[in-house]
Amino acid sequence: VSDEVVAVEAGEERPDQTVALEIAYDGGGFAGFARQPGLTTVQGSIESALETVLRRPVQITGAGRTDAGVHALGQVVSFDAPVDLPEAPKLLRSLNALTPEGITVRSARSARAGFSARFDAISREYRYRIVTGIAPPVFSARFAWHVERDLDIDSMRRAGELLLGEHDFRSFCVTESAQGKRTVRRLDVVEVTPESVLGEDLVTVRVLGNAFLHSMVRAIVGTLVEVGSGKRQPEWVGEALEACDRSAAGPTAPAHGLTLWRVEYPQDVWL
Amino acid sequence: VSDEVVAVEAGEERPDQTVALEIAYDGGGFAGFARQPGLTTVQGSIESALETVLRRPVQITGAGRTDAGVHALGQVVSFDAPVDLPEAPKLLRSLNALTPEGITVRSARSARAGFSARFDAISREYRYRIVTGIAPPVFSARFAWHVERDLDIDSMRRAGELLLGEHDFRSFCVTESAQGKRTVRRLDVVEVTPESVLGEDLVTVRVLGNAFLHSMVRAIVGTLVEVGSGKRQPEWVGEALEACDRSAAGPTAPAHGLTLWRVEYPQDVWL
Repeated sequence: VSDEVVAVEAGEERPDQTVALEIAYDGGGFAGFARQPGLTTVQGSIESALETVLRRPVQITGAGRTDAGVHALGQVVSFDAPVDLPEAPKLLRSLNALTPEGITVRSARSARAGFSARFDAISREYRYRIVTGIAPPVFSARFAWHVERDLDIDSMRRAGELLLGEHDFRSFCVTESAQGKRTVRRLDVVEVTPESVLGEDLVTVRVLGNAFLHSMVRAIVGTLVEVGSGKRQPEWVGEALEACDRSAAGPTAPAHGLTLWRVEYPQDVWL
Repeated sequence: VSDEVVAVEAGEERPDQTVALEIAYDGGGFAGFARQPGLTTVQGSIESALETVLRRPVQITGAGRTDAGVHALGQVVSFDAPVDLPEAPKLLRSLNALTPEGITVRSARSARAGFSARFDAISREYRYRIVTGIAPPVFSARFAWHVERDLDIDSMRRAGELLLGEHDFRSFCVTESAQGKRTVRRLDVVEVTPESVLGEDLVTVRVLGNAFLHSMVRAIVGTLVEVGSGKRQPEWVGEALEACDRSAAGPTAPAHGLTLWRVEYPQDVWL
């Protein structure tokens, strides 16, 4: 309550609602999601566009702090907004005119006051694309990891099943970022599917869970590729998980194959 | 016969076979398919890679001379080759190591002597991608035309049907290139289909015919978009076709939405 009084006394508008924007971006053009001084980041670009539209400083919260090179189709960011915010179509046009190439604001929704794109999320879905074979990809080169070996999809699927459920995923997390933190997460889906994208044959790994540790999806994919290329047996992935040691699992797959696909919220957050 | 004697006398190898390469490229990086002095072209890049591998000058023939900005998934090029050409996997690795980023040699096949990727083709398939709506595309931006209006797919389909069959397509061809030339072509398929590509919603126009005039697919797409956006009725496309006058049809859609998808040959050309 006292914060609110101070804000009003200082002449600021009290936030009447929270707005959630759904954002897509080509991670190749940005130094990651999180704002960093002197670097072009997704957060910095969105905040700067919002500041131009709202004529005041704005701070956004993202559902996932994607690393440099990682893409997003359905990243969600939230910010406090006055009631006189422009209607969604007008707001989208203004923001898309102000954000740099490679970022698109796809939609805007009103949420209840205090909504956080990060803390209210109930699940996150990521997709990781892999191109196999001798011929390097042309159209999906920016969005897929090129692995020259052929991959055995069935053994990748069997390995992926061993990761389902609630586990300590310390073996699949950047070591420094795991220290002193809770590293238990729940994985609901690990799907490995061949698909054709822009005419090129890919293998897509789809992963859905409540939340993810730093580089967790890329560590899972790097580990599944060890199995798919025949270097390891599927059972090894279960042992790697139990070891709770990053060095027990496979390498981290490169950032540019990964896309934050979708973030889910409880229905009752929307106004 | 006399040409052959001259070649043998001059110490050149007599071509023992013709080789067909299937090529994919991102047209955004090249000044078109056809070789041009001082410019980076697809033909120039492939010929230069082949010359390094075969250690002699090579001239290739392409199935379609795509314009600057137009992409290809299944362009086919042919060239005369000695019998001691490396086996396909080795040849592909060498060529893909030598061609610039944005060109990939997908496969190599032997064809009977005298095979021409251009003159032996029995059909060509092109696909044109369109993104509609306020939000500009992120992942398909290089490969799709962004049209802000929504498109009525049904009326585009009805308009497309009026183009099927054998017609004089002079209304859908760059005027200068049609002068004094036969402009009758046969169109077998005009399909308009909504699809999701890299998570973004597109409308794809698929066109298949025996051969195409200069900018013909782009003129067809520009004309169908006039109908889809409600500026014209489907019947207008039939009138535009009959007029045999470029100004009677719609504008030429931009190059970067177009991909040469596939070229078909009679089965008996392959060795």
